Amino acid sequence: MKIGREVTPKSAICTSTADTITVRGKDLCSELIPNTSFTDYFYLLLTGQAPNDTTRKVLDATLVSIAEHGFVPSIQAARMTYAAAPDALQGAVAAGILGCGPVILGASQNAGELFHRIAQRVDAGEALDVVVKATVTEMRAARLPIPGYGHPLHKERDPRVDALFNVAREAGASLRYVEIAEAIEAAIPGIVGKELNLNVSAAIPAVLLGTDFPVTALRGIPILARTASLIAHLNEETTQPAGFALSYHASQAVEFTG
Amino acid sequence: MKIGREVTPKSAICTSTADTITVRGKDLCSELIPNTSFTDYFYLLLTGQAPNDTTRKVLDATLVSIAEHGFVPSIQAARMTYAAAPDALQGAVAAGILGCGPVILGASQNAGELFHRIAQRVDAGEALDVVVKATVTEMRAARLPIPGYGHPLHKERDPRVDALFNVAREAGASLRYVEIAEAIEAAIPGIVGKELNLNVSAAIPAVLLGTDFPVTALRGIPILARTASLIAHLNEETTQPAGFALSYHASQAVEFTG
Amino acid sequence: MKIGREVTPKSAICTSTADTITVRGKDLCSELIPNTSFTDYFYLLLTGQAPNDTTRKVLDATLVSIAEHGFVPSIQAARMTYAAAPDALQGAVAAGILGCGPVILGASQNAGELFHRIAQRVDAGEALDVVVKATVTEMRAARLPIPGYGHPLHKERDPRVDALFNVAREAGASLRYVEIAEAIEAAIPGIVGKELNLNVSAAIPAVLLGTDFPVTALRGIPILARTASLIAHLNEETTQPAGFALSYHASQAVEFTG
Amino acid sequence: MKIGREVTPKSAICTSTADTITVRGKDLCSELIPNTSFTDYFYLLLTGQAPNDTTRKVLDATLVSIAEHGFVPSIQAARMTYAAAPDALQGAVAAGILGCGPVILGASQNAGELFHRIAQRVDAGEALDVVVKATVTEMRAARLPIPGYGHPLHKERDPRVDALFNVAREAGASLRYVEIAEAIEAAIPGIVGKELNLNVSAAIPAVLLGTDFPVTALRGIPILARTASLIAHLNEETTQPAGFALSYHASQAVEFTG
Repeated sequence: MKIGREVTPKSAICTSTADTITVRGKDLCSELIPNTSFTDYFYLLLTGQAPNDTTRKVLDATLVSIAEHGFVPSIQAARMTYAAAPDALQGAVAAGILGCGPVILGASQNAGELFHRIAQRVDAGEALDVVVKATVTEMRAARLPIPGYGHPLHKERDPRVDALFNVAREAGASLRYVEIAEAIEAAIPGIVGKELNLNVSAAIPAVLLGTDFPVTALRGIPILARTASLIAHLNEETTQPAGFALSYHASQAVEFTG
Repeated sequence: MKIGREVTPKSAICTSTADTITVRGKDLCSELIPNTSFTDYFYLLLTGQAPNDTTRKVLDATLVSIAEHGFVPSIQAARMTYAAAPDALQGAVAAGILGCGPVILGASQNAGELFHRIAQRVDAGEALDVVVKATVTEMRAARLPIPGYGHPLHKERDPRVDALFNVAREAGASLRYVEIAEAIEAAIPGIVGKELNLNVSAAIPAVLLGTDFPVTALRGIPILARTASLIAHLNEETTQPAGFALSYHASQAVEFTG
Repeated sequence: MKIGREVTPKSAICTSTADTITVRGKDLCSELIPNTSFTDYFYLLLTGQAPNDTTRKVLDATLVSIAEHGFVPSIQAARMTYAAAPDALQGAVAAGILGCGPVILGASQNAGELFHRIAQRVDAGEALDVVVKATVTEMRAARLPIPGYGHPLHKERDPRVDALFNVAREAGASLRYVEIAEAIEAAIPGIVGKELNLNVSAAIPAVLLGTDFPVTALRGIPILARTASLIAHLNEETTQPAGFALSYHASQAVEFTG
Repeated sequence: MKIGREVTPKSAICTSTADTITVRGKDLCSELIPNTSFTDYFYLLLTGQAPNDTTRKVLDATLVSIAEHGFVPSIQAARMTYAAAPDALQGAVAAGILGCGPVILGASQNAGELFHRIAQRVDAGEALDVVVKATVTEMRAARLPIPGYGHPLHKERDPRVDALFNVAREAGASLRYVEIAEAIEAAIPGIVGKELNLNVSAAIPAVLLGTDFPVTALRGIPILARTASLIAHLNEETTQPAGFALSYHASQAVEFTG
């Protein structure tokens, strides 16, 4: 049955014949495979353009920053899944990716949209500090979390934040969204009553939106980055099994309340 | 409950404190985020080592080669899923990754294991052409597919094969597994009765096993590569919806046999 | 690291020893396996209670109503996934379930929450028709879809709606949410400017909320129901392959715009 | 592109018009929704037939037996996933289902295929005890696990086994595969050197294959059953969060070996 308005599926990404594969206007085999890095190719697939040096440096830094942080829930879920179904690596990777949601790992998207809305109001003539204060106050009143602020382990500023801000500065990216991100961080204690410092999930959009990375694809950063880490962990699982041991220790802590 | 022998979950990948995150012995914030490409980081996560120039070039080329090939089944599954559940990008990416199996997309793992087994027998003193002929004959007798040979569109050699072989040659990788892969291709017509030429899923292990890439992680290549493409397609879906239109056209072709 | 406030994982669902498994206070082996239907067990797992006759009849009817509707997107995605990865049935089922989102298949949750909010305002003293008119007008102004109304194939009322309403009536369920659902249907033409008739995704919460089914678990109905259908389709795929043929026909319709 | 031989996607399961939905030859709205249990509908979808009383009783018992066993890995993976991405119930269910593999939860398929192969050899004239002894000896020599035997908690026979065998006996199912399953159990100590008693994953095919349930769909039993339990656990997670607490306790046990 026909669902929605669109009848013809259209795409600008790739077309192919028996002899050629054309991606974003480039011949895959003669123009891309010989000399394109995976990071550049990701950006080309996404935007249709090659990244400039600034964008490439910032994009690489964000992917490196969020890929790995030890036995976080998404890694545990994936290692348990692989232990149970070791013939389907793709299933264990998928289980890990499914934990890339708004609460942890996937908050970059929500933080980026927040920064974007604030930037638009500033563009329309409002003062940054006024917009920030109003926005945080409203979110607080609505009991919404402020995405990208506060971290269960890194109570002081998450160390990845300054590392990313430094990369952005040195690469010559616009620091506009870094300023917005820091204005929110500065406003939080007065409104929330405690510090909630910037974490990596806010720093990623803060630096990427200062390049020409599309705001709609921000959740793609933690998803792609974590996929690399998931493959590493699942490869480790083949020689050093941890999945079932993790589930054992977790289950030992369970209190039955029935 | 305790499942399996291992009681303590162990990992050599990452540890962290409130102030630092250490990945494979490097400080993430001061040593990795500032100047590591995503490709290098993937290799470091996986192996604990930085790649040399040869490995990096071959690894990038393989990731670029398999990421995108238009509206293949995994992309269609993901775009349909995102159209139905647009608030969960991670779910649509996961749906796409789940199609990375032994029949298409994930055959690199199976092809790499085949090459590896042949190489071990050659190491033990058998002649390459004898081992190849025996192996293909046995697989054929058992009605097993020969993973990485034959392609529904690229009936002549998949153009990505030579592109990857050229990268391996120019980067100075060992060509040992390329020779094994080509020996199988040459043996197929006499045994199977028709040409089944090398496709990208055999070319990927053929070049990667000539560097120091671990054979157990080969399926990680199409999974990571396709994730980049899935994010690009799903970002396109937000402005140019195709998922439901694809399902409409497919459903029009269905014959009800009940 | 510790994420969130809760330190001890607690659950009231199941506990076990070497000799016994206790589910919701019942001994699984002596009290449940011998004489419990799967529908009753689902309800027991979810709520801790056995369903009464009314709830059971309505619950069975809703599960039957939404399980299967031919080659809809979730089924196509699953059959394509299974064709590519036939050794991982669980992955193909997961791919199908991932399409249970707010746009199609999963809208029962959103419709149920809408009915619940309206019921609460009526409980607080407002008139049903006033609340309904205000609610639909606000949703329309905010360009929100009205979940559970309109269907791409069943332009007249989806035939499953009356079938479910009849089951609810004959089983003696409260018809309060059916009245709310129909009040919305009646209000839509005057506000939206065209008919958008009740579909199965609104009828499911309309009848279930008239029993003691928890509103928070409504999306579980299409997920559980569709899982049954996915298993049937994937079993058919093993003898009558359709996944790749579906993707072929869909890809034939694609227009390349790059 | 066209992959595989089949050009026309065919299905015998469902067809529909604007007014009617026909499933397996029955009108969904007038013949099925009013009076079909979900278990019966699952069997109808899968086989095209209504189950007889014996099949229904055995099918219900198997679904009830495997649905829930507390905080096993699949449940933990799902609760962690839902804690991270609470707006996508379908994603958390999918993460749980992905752990239905050959090692745990999904072993019913592998056990059923084992019983089926043994039955075929007995049909061809070999003696049961000879076939069983030869089969177990070969599997042991090949270091293959014997699917459905041994349990980490239930060292004595898993209590679900006798419960299922009793249902099969009382329902009048053929006990042929129960005999095969018990013959394997009896043969194991002499070959393996220790007892590995029947667990639920062997008991499920032992009883279902004695009805007319299709052997190819056996992994569907734990998948469908566990989906019901996953929905119950994830509904509990909304009011009694455990996902992050589970991951915290598991991570506390990790030993870093880098």
